[in-house]
Amino acid sequence: MEKMKPRTLSGFMELLPRPQQQMERMMDVLRRTYALYGFTPLDTPVIESSEVLLAKGGGDTEKQIYRFTKGDSDLALRFDLTVPLAKYVALHYNELAFPFRRYQIGKVYRGERAQRGRFREFYQADIDVIGDGKLDITNEAEIPAIIYQTFTTLGLRRFQIRVNNRKILNGFYAMLGLTGRSGDIMRTVDKLDKIGPDKVRACLVEDCALTGEQADEILSFIAISGSNEQVLAALSGYAGRNGIFDQGLDELNAVVQYLAAFGVPEDHFAVDLTIARGLDYYTGTVYETTLLDHPEIGSVCSGGRYDNLAEYYTDRQLPGVGISIGLTRLFYVLGEQGMLNDDLPTAPADVLILPMADDLAPAISLATRLRAAGVRTQLYTEAKKFKAKMAYADRQGIPYVIFLGEDEIARSVVTCKDMLSGEQTTLDFDGTLARIRSGLAAKNAGAVIRER
Amino acid sequence: MEKMKPRTLSGFMELLPRPQQQMERMMDVLRRTYALYGFTPLDTPVIESSEVLLAKGGGDTEKQIYRFTKGDSDLALRFDLTVPLAKYVALHYNELAFPFRRYQIGKVYRGERAQRGRFREFYQADIDVIGDGKLDITNEAEIPAIIYQTFTTLGLRRFQIRVNNRKILNGFYAMLGLTGRSGDIMRTVDKLDKIGPDKVRACLVEDCALTGEQADEILSFIAISGSNEQVLAALSGYAGRNGIFDQGLDELNAVVQYLAAFGVPEDHFAVDLTIARGLDYYTGTVYETTLLDHPEIGSVCSGGRYDNLAEYYTDRQLPGVGISIGLTRLFYVLGEQGMLNDDLPTAPADVLILPMADDLAPAISLATRLRAAGVRTQLYTEAKKFKAKMAYADRQGIPYVIFLGEDEIARSVVTCKDMLSGEQTTLDFDGTLARIRSGLAAKNAGAVIRER
Repeated sequence: MEKMKPRTLSGFMELLPRPQQQMERMMDVLRRTYALYGFTPLDTPVIESSEVLLAKGGGDTEKQIYRFTKGDSDLALRFDLTVPLAKYVALHYNELAFPFRRYQIGKVYRGERAQRGRFREFYQADIDVIGDGKLDITNEAEIPAIIYQTFTTLGLRRFQIRVNNRKILNGFYAMLGLTGRSGDIMRTVDKLDKIGPDKVRACLVEDCALTGEQADEILSFIAISGSNEQVLAALSGYAGRNGIFDQGLDELNAVVQYLAAFGVPEDHFAVDLTIARGLDYYTGTVYETTLLDHPEIGSVCSGGRYDNLAEYYTDRQLPGVGISIGLTRLFYVLGEQGMLNDDLPTAPADVLILPMADDLAPAISLATRLRAAGVRTQLYTEAKKFKAKMAYADRQGIPYVIFLGEDEIARSVVTCKDMLSGEQTTLDFDGTLARIRSGLAAKNAGAVIRER
Repeated sequence: MEKMKPRTLSGFMELLPRPQQQMERMMDVLRRTYALYGFTPLDTPVIESSEVLLAKGGGDTEKQIYRFTKGDSDLALRFDLTVPLAKYVALHYNELAFPFRRYQIGKVYRGERAQRGRFREFYQADIDVIGDGKLDITNEAEIPAIIYQTFTTLGLRRFQIRVNNRKILNGFYAMLGLTGRSGDIMRTVDKLDKIGPDKVRACLVEDCALTGEQADEILSFIAISGSNEQVLAALSGYAGRNGIFDQGLDELNAVVQYLAAFGVPEDHFAVDLTIARGLDYYTGTVYETTLLDHPEIGSVCSGGRYDNLAEYYTDRQLPGVGISIGLTRLFYVLGEQGMLNDDLPTAPADVLILPMADDLAPAISLATRLRAAGVRTQLYTEAKKFKAKMAYADRQGIPYVIFLGEDEIARSVVTCKDMLSGEQTTLDFDGTLARIRSGLAAKNAGAVIRER
């Protein structure tokens, strides 16, 4: 028979068992953390009707989408978790309680050009809070706490949550009478790091047709920096000139005010007026999260406040706030940077039992008891040499190997070897279990990400 | 703006928050149980190259498959988890340790005709043990233990694991010189329940061209029943006449022999000679699992031993044994039968905090402390009437509501209401936490499935 060459599509992550276990740990942290903040898990279909998925229409999305027909149906794979959420909330509106808080960790699909570190199938891990008509600012203030808790539980220390408010930017440009030109201005301002303030000023005047006074106003505005208090104090100097600006400043003050109560240390949080994000969608607080030692990665957790989640499906006003982690890409980058903690157990089992007697019943009973005690146990019964059996445990990083021979069976004891230390004990079941449990607790103590 | 009617495709399960929480509990049981037996989690892409996925080719599969092109690529959605496993093992052979034990819980896609209880996107929950060249029979003997543990942890009591061995059937037909006609015979024998033994005998003689003696042999063979011991004893009467039969009987004896050591009660297990399953694929032990009170559902967990997992991709002999649970369909049926335990908490949060003071900081700090203690906590800050806030907790089944007013803040206490009993306490933080924890432990004590 001619063989088909096995292959996995380019742009699709398929992990070996050890990294997969690390990925599972990361997902587990996300699920537990999101649940702690009162978010309910959702699971929507990967396939949706194309007209539902593309209700918003246009843009790069449509080019990248996986779209196909099956029978008479025009179908597509979801390209994010937000559009399916909008559909879900509009469809099930009457059966939901608002504010509706959900998390979803799911695969999404974008047929991007394949390149290193870019994926066509990747996990997004999203949380959103959706209000019915209104949504209190406290929900926006809580988001940095969730980001902080998530990343510290994953093991990260050197990261910063950067926050801005779109109303402040919109209000500021309105003050200058530049509402219509805010897009051009932002693109110019965005070059500040590259070309410096003098050239930015020149571009603002020449390309955006601003007056010199307007350009100076903008330059001094975006130069505002310092501690959160200093930035807020400087912003208060602009207050009273534009209603939208004032509202944004109030919101930003509210977000900063409750940081300490939410448990977010000041040094992990910064008001940053250069953050804008998706001009057409976000309407209030916006968030980015950067790894201080890896600015080149860009934001690893972003999102913001929006006013109208489901406007393509319903007339109801459904404002919300949400953030998203691009989990597959984050995992890939952490691996590349050597930041995944390889000391954590990644083996399929905690214990490998090697029966050394003809009757397997005692070894099987031992496995049954260990499993009942919550110890992940594999029974190894293949006809192999002792060395091959030990190599099997070693190769997978199984932390404990138990030998059970006639002698041990007769004495009601088990011989247990710690594969890392080499230490071997012969104890009764309870003694062995206690040793394994305390050993596993120590081995599992670390977090999945380790910074140097 | 004209609105797009939100809809979810027919044949695609999309759950409301409460049933979704029940589904999550079921998945959690599967993950934990599979891990206890030393299986490692895998996650392969949903999309594969069509030629890889259809290497085996032909059959109903190809008609049902979701297949499409993207750029130059001929792609398809996986229709089971076995073909991707075969590809995975063949592709990563050199990086895996054998026996390779993996579990995978993932969505698969089949464009079946839409009908009630049939899904086009559904979860399969699979475990497989793959050997390199050989695989010891103990692996086949362990499978009933895993099935038993999985279903009892889910909360089921009234189920039976039915086991047969394909070698016994093949060997028996070979004894009669009927190897080539075994398919026809099985289809006839399958009608036993409907048409009775006399008509089956007539069909065997007339349609399958068997002699009367052969037909009688078959009828007395399939009439073998009773306790496991009785069936095995009756089968031993056929021993010594065919090598394959004898091997199958040895294997079946080994599977039955270790049941008790594996912790499987005899009344949950039956040797059943009428079970055959997928004639072309399985080669040894085969498994079915039926709910005693719901035989109409058919088998809820099936599988068996195969000799050649990846023959379309490699010349290596990779024998294995595996089982699969059709999770989406099982969940649907359990819901239809009213067998999901509605007493278990399904709320997004354990506690809803209603701040009753202008300064939110104390309420936020309380939420932060509760979350640090592992209590899933939601802060409710919307500007609503008290009644609406309580209705929000009630509607979602949030078990505890905490009121925090100026008085409580001044006295360093919190008022906490158990929403089910109505009981309200005013205690300090530690007292409130202790009460909530013991209450939650009691509320979460049950299993996700409840039999009447």
